[in-house]
Amino acid sequence: MIVPLNEYDFLKRALVAHSNRDAIVCGDVRLTYRQFGERVNRWANLMRSLGVQKGDRVAILSQNCHRVLEAFFGTPLLGSILMPLNFRLVPDDFDYILNHGGAKVLVVEEGLTHLIDPIRDKLETVEHFILASDLNASEETWLDYESLLSESSVEQPPPVEIDENETSALLYTSGTTGRPKGVMLTHRNLYINAMNSICEFGIHERDVYLHTLAQFHCNGWGVGYAVTGMGGTHVIIKKFEPAAFFDLITHERVTFACMPPTMINMALNYLMDAETLERLPRDVRIGTAGSAPPLATIQGAQEKFGWKVIQIYGLTETSPFMTVSKIKPHMDNWPDEQKLRVQAKTGYPMIGVDIRVVTDEGHDVKPDSGDVGEVITRANVVMKGYWRQPEATDAVIVDGWFHTGDMALLDSEGYIEVVDRKKDLIISGGENISSIEVEGLLYKHPAVLEAAVVAAPDERWGEVPYAIVVLKPGATAAESELTDFCREHLAHYKCPKRIDFIDVLPRTATGKIQKNVLRERFWKGKTKHVG
Amino acid sequence: MIVPLNEYDFLKRALVAHSNRDAIVCGDVRLTYRQFGERVNRWANLMRSLGVQKGDRVAILSQNCHRVLEAFFGTPLLGSILMPLNFRLVPDDFDYILNHGGAKVLVVEEGLTHLIDPIRDKLETVEHFILASDLNASEETWLDYESLLSESSVEQPPPVEIDENETSALLYTSGTTGRPKGVMLTHRNLYINAMNSICEFGIHERDVYLHTLAQFHCNGWGVGYAVTGMGGTHVIIKKFEPAAFFDLITHERVTFACMPPTMINMALNYLMDAETLERLPRDVRIGTAGSAPPLATIQGAQEKFGWKVIQIYGLTETSPFMTVSKIKPHMDNWPDEQKLRVQAKTGYPMIGVDIRVVTDEGHDVKPDSGDVGEVITRANVVMKGYWRQPEATDAVIVDGWFHTGDMALLDSEGYIEVVDRKKDLIISGGENISSIEVEGLLYKHPAVLEAAVVAAPDERWGEVPYAIVVLKPGATAAESELTDFCREHLAHYKCPKRIDFIDVLPRTATGKIQKNVLRERFWKGKTKHVG
Repeated sequence: MIVPLNEYDFLKRALVAHSNRDAIVCGDVRLTYRQFGERVNRWANLMRSLGVQKGDRVAILSQNCHRVLEAFFGTPLLGSILMPLNFRLVPDDFDYILNHGGAKVLVVEEGLTHLIDPIRDKLETVEHFILASDLNASEETWLDYESLLSESSVEQPPPVEIDENETSALLYTSGTTGRPKGVMLTHRNLYINAMNSICEFGIHERDVYLHTLAQFHCNGWGVGYAVTGMGGTHVIIKKFEPAAFFDLITHERVTFACMPPTMINMALNYLMDAETLERLPRDVRIGTAGSAPPLATIQGAQEKFGWKVIQIYGLTETSPFMTVSKIKPHMDNWPDEQKLRVQAKTGYPMIGVDIRVVTDEGHDVKPDSGDVGEVITRANVVMKGYWRQPEATDAVIVDGWFHTGDMALLDSEGYIEVVDRKKDLIISGGENISSIEVEGLLYKHPAVLEAAVVAAPDERWGEVPYAIVVLKPGATAAESELTDFCREHLAHYKCPKRIDFIDVLPRTATGKIQKNVLRERFWKGKTKHVG
Repeated sequence: MIVPLNEYDFLKRALVAHSNRDAIVCGDVRLTYRQFGERVNRWANLMRSLGVQKGDRVAILSQNCHRVLEAFFGTPLLGSILMPLNFRLVPDDFDYILNHGGAKVLVVEEGLTHLIDPIRDKLETVEHFILASDLNASEETWLDYESLLSESSVEQPPPVEIDENETSALLYTSGTTGRPKGVMLTHRNLYINAMNSICEFGIHERDVYLHTLAQFHCNGWGVGYAVTGMGGTHVIIKKFEPAAFFDLITHERVTFACMPPTMINMALNYLMDAETLERLPRDVRIGTAGSAPPLATIQGAQEKFGWKVIQIYGLTETSPFMTVSKIKPHMDNWPDEQKLRVQAKTGYPMIGVDIRVVTDEGHDVKPDSGDVGEVITRANVVMKGYWRQPEATDAVIVDGWFHTGDMALLDSEGYIEVVDRKKDLIISGGENISSIEVEGLLYKHPAVLEAAVVAAPDERWGEVPYAIVVLKPGATAAESELTDFCREHLAHYKCPKRIDFIDVLPRTATGKIQKNVLRERFWKGKTKHVG
């Protein structure tokens, strides 16, 4: 018997097995799975009444909120396509994305309408503008989400025939260069990613999951489906802020959260009294991804808070999980530092994910050889393609393998270690320099809060590494001090030839440092030759 | 991107991520995943050299052994179809099954050839007879497994294009009546069942799994794929025997095993000194299925050994898992007895498994109503159908729902409770009597080792319950004593009207009591009217 895989199955299971369990804790809102399921039905019925049919796009612009989860589960019930928008973008971006994606309905959280109002007249396909608010705020030009929902039927809408390989989510990547591209993820992509999440994070019915990560980002890494399927509870933090974070962790007895390394760092740097620290739950798993976590970050979370850090790796294009980095049983007795180095590696493949690390000529790099190659993958989590950009799809999916653009080492234990984005790798006198390696060292210096290393042009070596550093509040360090620090620990050719200090690093909406912006200051008028 | 789901993916992952981990402990044989993977390659190359092509059937008749696991993983690599045979059957059965299934190759474990020799001449399709032995035993009419394997290439055979919906396993059900039927399970069936197993048993890379359950039985409940995918270790016990069982649990630090209730009972009744008991590992999960576990069995394993019992439910036709029975978080503070009663229920659906409990008229029974209906399911774990018996398939898969033939109650927490096989339900004066409920009570009597309750004809009530009881060694109990015991705890109409004593209950090869055999003694010359 073949039943199409569908993310709604995760909620369906929770509704049968855990209907009275707390599904949602979001500010003052508390919903059981039964109540949440009813709101999801209402969502689907509302969209139907607005004329949304299978394949139509519904966009949502919101900070983390139970309403985003409602859209995550209403969508696969209806067969529509969800476009979760990045609230850190600017109106021009929304103009492009909403028109390119052809959204029919746009749901915007109260407080974010200023991002849409300036370009509202330019939106050619949006027929309905809905304002999501806790206050039933009536605005003349916006329909009210809660009023519409309460007028919609609580019954499940009539079943729609949905192929598992149809698109369910359309996610525009932040893209450090060029226009954003719309990643099409299918029901099958999202289902299998969620199952892999359950397997690797060991998600179970007693889990209390804290949504710290922006939910728009690849449907919140898909963990929302996984936690729901196992009957866990979702605790939602609107926008990450350390005080609220620790407060919720403690009061809701959180057991699991996902945080990019920068967010863990913010938590570590938060000043906390001994009593608050004492009260923190210890049995917490932290999934981390988005960039390579510095050793000190993993160590800090594990030693200061007693939490377990599990690094995973993926891209929006891969739903997102490809690899996981765990200590293996035979490593249990290794020295702590060695174990941390393993945890800091990118990881080994999840079930059903084929990974290769290949040279430009397409040869697999040898394990432990120190050779760097591009990570390519063949898996059911790889996207269907880029929305209305078949040529962009063909550029990254070649002969059945998706090319990640990430450059990595491979070891004989099966761990890959991403050393750089293909375009961020610094090639100096024929030697590869991983900007991540140099940054990792700079992060170890006590005065350094953040660091970015990029290639700068050099007459003799072609490229050389330059560093841009943000110091910790109140800390001081001269360029020469940091340079000496690097020389002490790194091969000479890897040491930054210049170190600039800056107040804030430019970042994309998902928290990635915009190295292209940093590079510009050094490359003006020059041409970068990268393979 | 769509990549066909395939059980070999679980081994592929272990080979990349856990190549040096112990994969197999089987008697004196210890293999890492790398070594095991090489033997699987050799297996596939051997079968190719014997002319086995995609879709061809390879049968294996063996007690539990690493060679059975080799067949489990070699099969999906080759696209052939595996027929694991039940070694508790008789030669006539093998004659029927091997000819009906059309096996091309037959692998038989040394010591079991006497089951094949008498019917060997009748096997019309078997071209190659292979003897699996640790001793390189040369027998004139049998090829030697180990010699053939060592002559075969260790390299992975050329890839075969395999659709995930093609049959991978052909499993003949023991069937309490009529000829066995060949259940066709696809790659997708087995893959999704294995993923659900990981989710519900929380299987992880530190697990050491003891194969106590006969591996032929629905590919060992599919847990072999799940444990492999997560990089756990397989400890194999050839044939369940309490002394060896406890010895392996302790020496290999086993963390997880699957055992039907009768097997748990055998373990509980095994006489063990205090020191041995003390040395047993406590952190052990026991998956149990096959029949409803008596409360005393669950309680015994949890209290005496400190193990955690997780009941699951399924049929060969459903790959096999449909439901799982766990204590939910809000039940944690319930009294022990109440929690045991929950654990003894059949369970709530796994992810992606739709379950309904329906009356003969097709109406869903109301939760907590006490109404009994048939369990039907719609899920990706449901078989493709019965091999060469389309009419038998059509009789059980109706309008997209598989009819299990199991009768159950449904409660408002989403647990179903199978009260009987449809054909075992006793209908007395219009009242449904669950033979399982009455048996469960009899099991609580200190003198009772085993009990079976079946319908007997009655002029007044149509049917009445009769019990057949096996007493514990050395124990005595008169019929009247047991009857009084029943009357004390059960509604009068449910009490057995007659209790027979017997030395051994007739069982199918998978350990199920053959109620049809027991009923015969009461129904000779009479007609049973069952809906």
